[in-house]
Amino acid sequence: MAALVSDSLAKENNDKASENSTIQVIGGHGTNSYSNNSSYQRLSANVVTKKIEDAIMKNLDVETLSSTSNIFRVADFGCGVGSNTINSMQDLLLIVEKKHISQCPTSSQMPEFQVIFNDQFTNDFNTLFTYLPQDKQYLVASVPGSFHNQVLPKSSLHLAHCSYSLHWLSRLPKELRDERSPAWNKGKIHYTSAPPEVLMAYATQFAEDLDNFLSARGREMVSGGMIVIVGSSIPDGMPYSQVVNGIMYDCMGSILMDMVKTGSISEADVDAFNLPIYACPPGEFIEGVERNGLFSIEVIELMNPAPWLKGPIDIPVFVKHVRAAMEGMFSNHFPSKAIDELFDHLVLKLSDISQQLESCYRDGLQLFAILKRK
Amino acid sequence: MAALVSDSLAKENNDKASENSTIQVIGGHGTNSYSNNSSYQRLSANVVTKKIEDAIMKNLDVETLSSTSNIFRVADFGCGVGSNTINSMQDLLLIVEKKHISQCPTSSQMPEFQVIFNDQFTNDFNTLFTYLPQDKQYLVASVPGSFHNQVLPKSSLHLAHCSYSLHWLSRLPKELRDERSPAWNKGKIHYTSAPPEVLMAYATQFAEDLDNFLSARGREMVSGGMIVIVGSSIPDGMPYSQVVNGIMYDCMGSILMDMVKTGSISEADVDAFNLPIYACPPGEFIEGVERNGLFSIEVIELMNPAPWLKGPIDIPVFVKHVRAAMEGMFSNHFPSKAIDELFDHLVLKLSDISQQLESCYRDGLQLFAILKRK
Repeated sequence: MAALVSDSLAKENNDKASENSTIQVIGGHGTNSYSNNSSYQRLSANVVTKKIEDAIMKNLDVETLSSTSNIFRVADFGCGVGSNTINSMQDLLLIVEKKHISQCPTSSQMPEFQVIFNDQFTNDFNTLFTYLPQDKQYLVASVPGSFHNQVLPKSSLHLAHCSYSLHWLSRLPKELRDERSPAWNKGKIHYTSAPPEVLMAYATQFAEDLDNFLSARGREMVSGGMIVIVGSSIPDGMPYSQVVNGIMYDCMGSILMDMVKTGSISEADVDAFNLPIYACPPGEFIEGVERNGLFSIEVIELMNPAPWLKGPIDIPVFVKHVRAAMEGMFSNHFPSKAIDELFDHLVLKLSDISQQLESCYRDGLQLFAILKRK
Repeated sequence: MAALVSDSLAKENNDKASENSTIQVIGGHGTNSYSNNSSYQRLSANVVTKKIEDAIMKNLDVETLSSTSNIFRVADFGCGVGSNTINSMQDLLLIVEKKHISQCPTSSQMPEFQVIFNDQFTNDFNTLFTYLPQDKQYLVASVPGSFHNQVLPKSSLHLAHCSYSLHWLSRLPKELRDERSPAWNKGKIHYTSAPPEVLMAYATQFAEDLDNFLSARGREMVSGGMIVIVGSSIPDGMPYSQVVNGIMYDCMGSILMDMVKTGSISEADVDAFNLPIYACPPGEFIEGVERNGLFSIEVIELMNPAPWLKGPIDIPVFVKHVRAAMEGMFSNHFPSKAIDELFDHLVLKLSDISQQLESCYRDGLQLFAILKRK
């Protein structure tokens, strides 16, 4: 169950408004760092590898893609820090090699492979590089910058990967910052259990971000190239208060409001703070891709992000993962003492409702999609 | 005068044997960081910009180079940390744009530009990215790894730049680590004033490194692409003891031997320590390029690296620059207390011989070369 939340949060905040601030996944190798608290993500990645392999073996024309320059570029958008992105990229290369051998059995020459790591300028690329194996058989580059913009040369990319990153909104919708708007999110920090205007503001921002993401990839990718997208989702029409993440965001909001009462933080700070995270249902995703028009949808489905995890949740471990991924967002808005208080109380509050957490919906919360550049 | 030494030292040590150690230019923005102590390099860079412009306007066929993909890639090999590499790359882009307008006056479309920063895996790319202007009109990538190996895809690069980096040897010649060899460098830390076998060991290693550098760039660059090389040199046949850097290395060796006497460090440590720095004379450089065979020499000359600096040297400032660039090398071999002692004594010792420093040879100590991929 921990994978469910830590996966969905464990990427750098793409909030453009905060691009030069300290909002980010905790880098380095320390106790609370993301790289030391992301073993679940690796397990989760293995579940989708087989599906990616099926799609590539069936639909990716590696012969044509690498025919002009004999270079094959694979990029991870929103790579974060740690070995997960490297393992994912290496898995993709193995699959592409396999497809190459199967498609071009008489060709002795494998294309050169270049792996490109993309994330915000504030990402800890230094630490990421320390995870690269010394005997790697591929070229490496890091490309800093928001993936809502073009970051690679036109028609230079063959295969893209974006795992648990698209749910980070590029910025908070402006309605959420306007006290007079019906989307002013009083006493809450997310659209979970909030008025419909709040949900609408989030959904509209996500649609704009998805369109920018697809347009940027559309410029960068060669015709026939593919994007693998894995990320937070929810069945169409289901309210977010029925899933663990939603319940947790409600708990966080309520803990923060309790802290307002004790004077630790101000109410205005809580009202103005909103998590820039949106779990897009598949219907909206399909609509966005079709509206954009540059990609065809090869595969789309909802999966259970952690089917192997059953039984009681280890709440302290779970909160440790959540903290590794989310601390940066809170610490930009609240004093550091308040952060400790928030996460300490979160352990207690979630422990009180552990039965409710275990019984809530947890099946189709992971979107898996493969798009192909037309 | 400070530029002379700080330029020649202010790049990360490319010692492969130490690739995963902490030998590196001091990153970040602190008082002793390279980024805050490299203003002289920028001045020095401006002196060569005009020469680069002349060569590009005359010899670089930008129309042909960018015709197939409409992308033009420029890379800095051994970029280090700070604004110098960014300024150099931007200067190159301006020149290429100017050439494009002059060569293709009827073409409205400028190619896309991608700037690639290369340095060792241990380089502080995080800090480097913070120096990028927010309104930059070019794409950016960092490519970690030793430039003695291929780090970019085949035939993907159009213009390369390598400033004050080639003088770092990829490793210390093994003879210098063998007590029974005539090149065992007893009581010294460099080939300055050392037996001819020591100089020969350095020169042989440099020749091998240069060949690897050229072969790697040969694979990466398109035919007609150019490399700009700026770096430490010395007139053919002149002993290194006649220049400021050489005198300083002798001083450092002698201070370290004094510290052996007081018991601060061991004699064996000094004997085994050698600075992996070689200032290649133009004759050897030409020979190396011709032996490699992949590039033609378009321009080669010796320049005065700092013709505008005259009069007395500010020794404390000078040593501060030297320390920013070299501290990492020493701190890998000697205790940190010894480092403070070394640089404190260096200020005193150089002050004692400031007359000698000012009167020594300082003209043709900078190699400027432009090579063209055949």
